[in-house]
Amino acid sequence: MPKISSKGLNMPQSPIRKLAPFADRAIEEGKKIFFLNIGQPDISTPKAALDAVKNNNLDILSYSPSSGFDSYKKKLAKYYVENGIDIEADDLIVTTGGSEALLFTMGSITDPGDEVIIPEPFYANYNGFAVASGVVVKPVESKFEDNFALPSISEFEKQITEKTKAIIICNPGNPTGYLYTKDEIQKLADLAIKHDLFIVADEVYREFVYDGEEHHSIMSLPELKNHAIMVDSVSKRYSMCGARIGCMVSKNKELIATALKFAQARLSPPTFAQIASEAALDTKKDYFIEVNEEYKSRRDTLIEALEDIKGVKVAKPKGAFYCVAELPVEDSEDFAKWMLSEFDLNGETVMVAPAAGFYSTPHTGMNQIRIAYVIEKQNLLKAVAILKMALQAYTKR
Amino acid sequence: MPKISSKGLNMPQSPIRKLAPFADRAIEEGKKIFFLNIGQPDISTPKAALDAVKNNNLDILSYSPSSGFDSYKKKLAKYYVENGIDIEADDLIVTTGGSEALLFTMGSITDPGDEVIIPEPFYANYNGFAVASGVVVKPVESKFEDNFALPSISEFEKQITEKTKAIIICNPGNPTGYLYTKDEIQKLADLAIKHDLFIVADEVYREFVYDGEEHHSIMSLPELKNHAIMVDSVSKRYSMCGARIGCMVSKNKELIATALKFAQARLSPPTFAQIASEAALDTKKDYFIEVNEEYKSRRDTLIEALEDIKGVKVAKPKGAFYCVAELPVEDSEDFAKWMLSEFDLNGETVMVAPAAGFYSTPHTGMNQIRIAYVIEKQNLLKAVAILKMALQAYTKR
Repeated sequence: MPKISSKGLNMPQSPIRKLAPFADRAIEEGKKIFFLNIGQPDISTPKAALDAVKNNNLDILSYSPSSGFDSYKKKLAKYYVENGIDIEADDLIVTTGGSEALLFTMGSITDPGDEVIIPEPFYANYNGFAVASGVVVKPVESKFEDNFALPSISEFEKQITEKTKAIIICNPGNPTGYLYTKDEIQKLADLAIKHDLFIVADEVYREFVYDGEEHHSIMSLPELKNHAIMVDSVSKRYSMCGARIGCMVSKNKELIATALKFAQARLSPPTFAQIASEAALDTKKDYFIEVNEEYKSRRDTLIEALEDIKGVKVAKPKGAFYCVAELPVEDSEDFAKWMLSEFDLNGETVMVAPAAGFYSTPHTGMNQIRIAYVIEKQNLLKAVAILKMALQAYTKR
Repeated sequence: MPKISSKGLNMPQSPIRKLAPFADRAIEEGKKIFFLNIGQPDISTPKAALDAVKNNNLDILSYSPSSGFDSYKKKLAKYYVENGIDIEADDLIVTTGGSEALLFTMGSITDPGDEVIIPEPFYANYNGFAVASGVVVKPVESKFEDNFALPSISEFEKQITEKTKAIIICNPGNPTGYLYTKDEIQKLADLAIKHDLFIVADEVYREFVYDGEEHHSIMSLPELKNHAIMVDSVSKRYSMCGARIGCMVSKNKELIATALKFAQARLSPPTFAQIASEAALDTKKDYFIEVNEEYKSRRDTLIEALEDIKGVKVAKPKGAFYCVAELPVEDSEDFAKWMLSEFDLNGETVMVAPAAGFYSTPHTGMNQIRIAYVIEKQNLLKAVAILKMALQAYTKR
């Protein structure tokens, strides 16, 4: 029997989907699960986006250009300009989700054995894309007690070697909800320029920022013209996770020309989803104001309820729709499995994402979980009540 | 300025899209171009597929499961069974185009530095996916004079080393139109088993087979259970290139479990396009009979007209909708550029794909072009008439 590759064997399993078999079994047993594990918003997709697809009049579902439809690229560039990000249509490539933007980025700037530095905990699939690209992730730990603020620059410098190609950040952060300050972004920029590194910012949660804070894009610093790469997606912004449309943005012409070769090899991004994404750009500010108010209110409700549980601590998120909580358990993965397989409260239980999978350093974050507050407040409260009872029962076993 | 990766620098440019800037300029100058360079069919997408998307009633465009919607997977497995390919829904992963199926396959079976053997000329983007995966392509030349039949097995064996992981074929072939015989498939199977290699078959043109010939799938040989990987796509079958839906199929459970980790990292294939693809499976046999008659008739018309040009030879295709022609020129890329930039016949010209980009061996196929017969017969005849005049003018310069 021919062998699976080492790459394939080393490919990590997503911590968000890892416990799915346990959830499937719980559902088969008739349990109702509150899903706090996955960032699939329950918010309606803007009607304009859905209608554009319903009203399309294509006879032939053809390839689009490899870098995306011109009309979409131009309108998207305009959206960025309106958000203080000064780019042109040719500075971006439309990708199949933010995922593909990350893959094109990795392919364009790293060779097998190269290294990237990422503050941990980080979006777990960065590990997957790194393994798929043969790249080594060097983590720099951000601290729960600091709400996961940027670690000191000296910690980054300790990890820089001849093989370091880039620093990757997620802002606001998944799983942390942390929003980098202007000063932190400037410090990262200075570091990238000093060591001549690319700096990749995953800004897919740009619109989800609370408490009157401001989002500072990596693209807003002119000195990073050749260094900054932004990864973006419509998935969360417009609650269109199933569209699979993202983009890769950079003012570095050579980089975009290189990434375009990867884009050409896979021919084009999906056509229907580009139609939806282009129409979604007409979404009024009101939509985001309403959505943000809803998320903020959920966040506050969730955190208050969580902190009410003895032994539970929460790192305060300022953006996105996730938070990391510390539980009074030794191994949150074991607890999460147990909640699915052994526990229920009147036939109901809760699924959470164990946070260790968001760390690159082994045995870190073992008592932490990530919670996505993408369900209604009433259900969030029910879920936390179940979590509370589950913790009591689990620790008493 | 930080450096582009070697991988990025080595990433080949698609021979199909390479001359696009020359075409853009020709269009700006007011020329009309007949596009024979790209496999974008002019055939209408089945109405059922388009209607399913128009009539969708989604409120939230959510992620699908990473391996695709269950309902689509089950219906797709049924389609394969009806086509003599005995698989179950769990033997397949729905991918974003055949392209992603190739990437998942490469990732699951090769590590950087590993080798794959491919009869050349081959679909040019195999080169791209190989470079992206750090894999070395070892070509085995199939001959124009044999209509690109399978090279002798001893030629394959000459290329096998400790690093060889797979043989990749495209059946029926792009760019050759060659359809492998049952005997050829059996020889490849014996070779794969003898050397314990994977055998990857890109069968996206399965339905397009002419002259009463039969398609022999790599999946039809039970002894290849653990060795065979099929790559497929809805792009050509239903003229849905813009959907970006394909699949990876194998009875090797460990392989599918590995590929699923790559699938999970990118979350899910596009939702709208899966809805279209599922509905497309209801397409009646009549559609394919009609489409095949149209392609067959185009092929015959095209070849007759081409062979009527002095110095032009054509390798006879039995499937797909491409053919490779030899021209009485030294460098077909130079000729193709010249047709776009220097030549026109009453304001009209022709775009073809130089075939050298479909070979991995340098300076091979330099006098060959690939022609896609995806435009109406009347236009095919016009295009060939222009090509004839262009050849006369080019050789007389």
